[in-house]
Amino acid sequence: MSKNNPKHLNPEQFRQKGYQMVDLIADYMQNIEQYPVLSQVEPGEVYSSLPTRPPEQGELFQNVLNDVNSKIIPGLTHWQSPNFYGYFPTHASGPSILGDFLSSGFGIQGMLWSTSPACTELETLVLDWMVDIAGLPEHFHSSRSGGGVIQDSASSAALCAAVAAREKALSFDSKRNITDLTAYISGHTHSSAEKSLKIAGFRDEQIRRLNVDDSFAIKGDDFARRVKIDIDNGFIPAFICATIGTTSSLAIDPIREISEVASKNQIWVHVDAAYAGSATVCPEFRNLLDGVELVDSYCFNPHKWLLTNFDSDLFYVANKPDLVNALTITPEYLRNKATESGQVFDYSGWQISLGRRFRSLKLWFVIRHYGVEGLRAHIRKHIELAEHFESLVESNSSYEIFHPRVLNLVCFRHKDGNEKTKQILEKINSEGKIFLTHTILDDMYVMRFVPGAIHTEMRHIDSAWAEFVKAAV
Amino acid sequence: MSKNNPKHLNPEQFRQKGYQMVDLIADYMQNIEQYPVLSQVEPGEVYSSLPTRPPEQGELFQNVLNDVNSKIIPGLTHWQSPNFYGYFPTHASGPSILGDFLSSGFGIQGMLWSTSPACTELETLVLDWMVDIAGLPEHFHSSRSGGGVIQDSASSAALCAAVAAREKALSFDSKRNITDLTAYISGHTHSSAEKSLKIAGFRDEQIRRLNVDDSFAIKGDDFARRVKIDIDNGFIPAFICATIGTTSSLAIDPIREISEVASKNQIWVHVDAAYAGSATVCPEFRNLLDGVELVDSYCFNPHKWLLTNFDSDLFYVANKPDLVNALTITPEYLRNKATESGQVFDYSGWQISLGRRFRSLKLWFVIRHYGVEGLRAHIRKHIELAEHFESLVESNSSYEIFHPRVLNLVCFRHKDGNEKTKQILEKINSEGKIFLTHTILDDMYVMRFVPGAIHTEMRHIDSAWAEFVKAAV
Repeated sequence: MSKNNPKHLNPEQFRQKGYQMVDLIADYMQNIEQYPVLSQVEPGEVYSSLPTRPPEQGELFQNVLNDVNSKIIPGLTHWQSPNFYGYFPTHASGPSILGDFLSSGFGIQGMLWSTSPACTELETLVLDWMVDIAGLPEHFHSSRSGGGVIQDSASSAALCAAVAAREKALSFDSKRNITDLTAYISGHTHSSAEKSLKIAGFRDEQIRRLNVDDSFAIKGDDFARRVKIDIDNGFIPAFICATIGTTSSLAIDPIREISEVASKNQIWVHVDAAYAGSATVCPEFRNLLDGVELVDSYCFNPHKWLLTNFDSDLFYVANKPDLVNALTITPEYLRNKATESGQVFDYSGWQISLGRRFRSLKLWFVIRHYGVEGLRAHIRKHIELAEHFESLVESNSSYEIFHPRVLNLVCFRHKDGNEKTKQILEKINSEGKIFLTHTILDDMYVMRFVPGAIHTEMRHIDSAWAEFVKAAV
Repeated sequence: MSKNNPKHLNPEQFRQKGYQMVDLIADYMQNIEQYPVLSQVEPGEVYSSLPTRPPEQGELFQNVLNDVNSKIIPGLTHWQSPNFYGYFPTHASGPSILGDFLSSGFGIQGMLWSTSPACTELETLVLDWMVDIAGLPEHFHSSRSGGGVIQDSASSAALCAAVAAREKALSFDSKRNITDLTAYISGHTHSSAEKSLKIAGFRDEQIRRLNVDDSFAIKGDDFARRVKIDIDNGFIPAFICATIGTTSSLAIDPIREISEVASKNQIWVHVDAAYAGSATVCPEFRNLLDGVELVDSYCFNPHKWLLTNFDSDLFYVANKPDLVNALTITPEYLRNKATESGQVFDYSGWQISLGRRFRSLKLWFVIRHYGVEGLRAHIRKHIELAEHFESLVESNSSYEIFHPRVLNLVCFRHKDGNEKTKQILEKINSEGKIFLTHTILDDMYVMRFVPGAIHTEMRHIDSAWAEFVKAAV
């Protein structure tokens, strides 16, 4: 056996190298504001800085850490920087990072209840907690008709919803097939909904793009009109993805109105609240959920705005069998007594993949560390930061708010128009002090400023604003 | 602002709690053999041991760690135990856990090259390395026609392949639609292939289950025969999932023969080598890859047998545009100069979801820590362990090898038949010293013994065998 002994770390070696890694991450946190927020490397630069062939012999751990510092960190865009205002944030709080670390350390598989009961049951518990915390409909609780599960992302949640909707629509008439189905989105629905529909077998000509109103929200009457036309033409309307908080402008589709049309026509309503859904931990933002009690599925991402590492999309369905029947296959080698007893959930039947990590640990760490009050304070702080930034924009004669602020997204532009606004954004991003991204609304190039990083403080907002003032000259 | 200050960890607090977490994980590693391998909790036991309502105020970190020890660990099935012989293993080596921890700590998004160039480029590099390491076809290298990407699991890889295959088949004739397509698997193909096909919109009646030979491998001539029948009946054969190492018995489908039939008929060949693919790091197992140079896509999972944490499925395609064109949608808010330059990969267009972790770090840590020699030694050690176990079974008059050993999977049973074999397996698992799982082959109930946990040594095999000897009485 002697020649086949790979140099595994024993627990003591793991402990020592683990401390080194903790130090590296803590130092990264400490130093994060020193780096340009948007990585300044050129295409191919990181790849070509590393050996093109793998090492034949094992290397010292310290060598790898040195390369992390000298070659990897310069190639990062620093999403955890307090000066990151792009896209929507993706959170990695301390408690969450450590919960995720524990998940890696346990190295268990949560595909079936029996493959680690705690993985399934902690997930059920935390998703039930979140029904309380976020003010979601009571029937999303696992003890009722519905239930929740953690997906990797809102993309996967939309795909699960689209597949469940497709199967439900086809179950009504065995002579019809997928080419008879239609689905509904808008030009402001996240691209992942369209991608999910296409993965699920919908062709472009089966996907309707609904009109939006001045706030970029779907017009409920246009949905009703398109559904009627489709039915008259022999189609089966099957699925709509409505959004609470679109990516471009945080527009809120009229969930209640959409659901009423949908329910008359047996259309599955999926609600993508990926970003904005975290705000409903605060009672003052529960109005966002108006009508959600009528929908078939709903998701939001604590990995965006609720202090939890990617991947953490919480996906709820109103009626468990709709989802589970669409996604469960049990071959012989996965059969076990617990599954056959019907007393347990096997979450692999609630998602695309068979395999799954212990994803609930990090969210459980977050909720326990911060408490529900802490989660609310965190959201409210970002709203305050956005209000402050909005007031700075309003007080300046060169810039204008393009679109009324929703939550912590400020959409604004330079008054000289698209070209000037684009120049400013590119200049600021290339300088690296802050980072933000853009969108196009009504043919206008608009900057999106989202103060949503965990460690952003009022002083960062003031410094960020100084960049815009300087660039406007 | 004072009331909206959630108690974030500062870098020093993170460092201190990070050390505590390292200690907890190191202690878990140290003590893992003390626990029953299969969790002995009853359904609902973990859930009901925890508060049904979330805490309003934040709690001490130590309280959470205490609950991990007292409530979570007893609810785990210990996949990293050296006494775990069930399913296929899922690995969590020390270097991999720490690489994954770093990914959580950075908390970046790798959806686009520009959102963290190092995330994309390290992934490209490591997947290129693996072409060398595992002896894969040269055209899988990113600089050639093909390329590789990390998926969460072989399920997702199969889904990406099925969608790419579907789009390619439909591109040949715009008048045909998805209901005209057929796909091919066998009763031994992993259930995730069938599930992926169904998610991609294939109905059960479009999925052909091919006959297998005495080794449970697809019969190439049956594939040719079914394709001809389908074409004669007006179908368009689009996709076959062939397997290198089936879950039940590690059967090897005839990739070359299948590919030759497929190539004549423009059928996409996807190869699922999820488990056995790791063995090809050893030159003596490269014969497993015979014919892979002819296929359209290929995947294997370092998170099973190559020392890397879940999720780490390596998915290669022979022709990048087939995949990328099927899965890329770029809305305005994701547009950027690097993407438009065409000089970079945006891996979100190579997978289902938009969001993605920095998944390559952990595999990079593994390759650098162990070196290619270490990876080979690791595989060879498990083969030796399986050979030893096989010889113990062969030397015993109560048991029989059911099926010739392939790699490190020993399929065996008690000579008294199905009922006795099942009793033995259930008794052994309930006692908790070791854990293994079963399958059914030719109506025979068969125990699957897979010595594949990272820390399994010869002494564990001897102890495991003693359990079978005792139970046979």
